[in-house]
Amino acid sequence: MARFFNEMKANVFVLAENDVIKILKEMNQFSGKINFISLSDIEKIKEMDFSMAIAIERPGIGKDGKYHDMHGNIISAQKIDFLFDGKIPTIGIGDGGNEIGMGKIFHAIPDKRIASITKADEIVIGGVSNWGAYGIIASLSILTGKNYCHNGAMEAKMIKKCVDSGAIDGVTRKREYSIDAIPSKVHESIVNMLYNIVASII
Amino acid sequence: MARFFNEMKANVFVLAENDVIKILKEMNQFSGKINFISLSDIEKIKEMDFSMAIAIERPGIGKDGKYHDMHGNIISAQKIDFLFDGKIPTIGIGDGGNEIGMGKIFHAIPDKRIASITKADEIVIGGVSNWGAYGIIASLSILTGKNYCHNGAMEAKMIKKCVDSGAIDGVTRKREYSIDAIPSKVHESIVNMLYNIVASII
Repeated sequence: MARFFNEMKANVFVLAENDVIKILKEMNQFSGKINFISLSDIEKIKEMDFSMAIAIERPGIGKDGKYHDMHGNIISAQKIDFLFDGKIPTIGIGDGGNEIGMGKIFHAIPDKRIASITKADEIVIGGVSNWGAYGIIASLSILTGKNYCHNGAMEAKMIKKCVDSGAIDGVTRKREYSIDAIPSKVHESIVNMLYNIVASII
Repeated sequence: MARFFNEMKANVFVLAENDVIKILKEMNQFSGKINFISLSDIEKIKEMDFSMAIAIERPGIGKDGKYHDMHGNIISAQKIDFLFDGKIPTIGIGDGGNEIGMGKIFHAIPDKRIASITKADEIVIGGVSNWGAYGIIASLSILTGKNYCHNGAMEAKMIKKCVDSGAIDGVTRKREYSIDAIPSKVHESIVNMLYNIVASII
């Protein structure tokens, strides 16, 4: 996602926790200039003047004013919902209902304890949030006529690098080559499918 | 599909046009015993005592008593809708609305000219009918704990063999390595995805 917008000459800022930024930097997937900002620099973020915001599986505030995981547990998360207050165009990508953006379909989320009230202009829901992000890149590839999708081999490399750098599977809580308890192979084939669909159209 | 039920010790009969049977035999994908019956042997079919029937993108009769392609053109097709009269369990797989089984959702098919009135107990709708059939095999694989899905390399080989044996793409009407105007590569990656999903579950 960052890579695509970087290629589009946008000034891209990736906002994430320090641990995540560390892993992203180690993955070294970014050929262009990407700016990383720690979510702990919240005052700095508040002063910035973004032209649009995309949240990928970012916890969104619930109606109780707290953040929740998919099981209803209260979790701590840096509050960046203010970027989605309607002043700039926004996209929210999620897979559980507890993410920024899902407030747009609050009525449709069965478990109101976890449902986020934070809306986005457009939301994309994936079986796994990553797939939603990849789907957007696939769509943008078709619109621009250039295939920006990565392939399965790159996905495998990214997952391996993430885990080897210390990341865990968010569902199994283990350090294994899987995302949301779905093994790397499945993600690789989803990515390959998107890549091939785009290649067949452009 | 035939291979799966053959492995399940079922006595499998593939009913198809002579041209299709010729291609299927040339593809030589069937390790076990599969019986091919030409649809022109309709009297023979009527006398047989099937225990279940599965239609894969088989034209189903419309409310005008005729068969139609997706564009509303009247086409000739051997009438085998009688197998789907409710006496035996049936599955209908389709992608257009004009197929056997789609009568179950006649109300939901926008173009009533093409909509088939022939129902099936269960229907499966795929972006391409083949994918619906592959999805059933994937589900049965999970239920049986053995991966009966084929992989992308086999799909490529099957498409190549089909086309080299004289088959055409049903949409482009050309002899090219594609199905419904979607290149072989995309089908291969869909098949690989299903294979990997099943492998990750069983």
